[in-house]
Amino acid sequence: MVIDALSSTFSALADPTRRAILARLASGERSVTELAQPFEMSLPGISKHLKVLQKAGLIEQGRHAQWRPCRLKAKPLKDVADWVDHYRQFWEESLDRLDEYLKEVQRTEKKYARKKS
Amino acid sequence: MVIDALSSTFSALADPTRRAILARLASGERSVTELAQPFEMSLPGISKHLKVLQKAGLIEQGRHAQWRPCRLKAKPLKDVADWVDHYRQFWEESLDRLDEYLKEVQRTEKKYARKKS
Repeated sequence: MVIDALSSTFSALADPTRRAILARLASGERSVTELAQPFEMSLPGISKHLKVLQKAGLIEQGRHAQWRPCRLKAKPLKDVADWVDHYRQFWEESLDRLDEYLKEVQRTEKKYARKKS
Repeated sequence: MVIDALSSTFSALADPTRRAILARLASGERSVTELAQPFEMSLPGISKHLKVLQKAGLIEQGRHAQWRPCRLKAKPLKDVADWVDHYRQFWEESLDRLDEYLKEVQRTEKKYARKKS
């Protein structure tokens, strides 16, 4: 089955360990051993996650240095941002409506409290 | 297994049909039959996708009207935008570096072309 690039990116992001790996790589390249450290995970366990991220194009592994550092790649993250940006107007309006509703509730409650006292 | 909210959102988004359903709902609520139309998909097929989107909190289905319209929910989409926004600086710098590199290549090529002519 051929999976489109965006589906493969979203699928790779659907795991907290993989997102934590990306967060560490945002500050600079790291070896697989360095990446494994905070997770109390075996090297094969981490390698499996790295393979998913690599297949989705979210990271790449250097070929030259002996420690083969992993680094973050920008494009798929920008594609996610571009995709979700189409919905920005929608959620801004929704959250504005929610805000307006909450203000209305507060006004009603205040009025009720004044009547009671 | 308990899945965190963001993983469940990303997992639901990892499918082009489900993303197309969200795109249709962005312009207003729709019945399940209306949603099924453009996909040449059976109602049970669409219902399965809707269940995944509903479980991830990306849509909700009305209870009152007889046609039980589906509508988009804002919060998980905003959560995705907030998450990816942490990487904005990273990809902007990466793409700037790429741009700089391409300009450098063009300058070198022009210089070389001038020398040859």
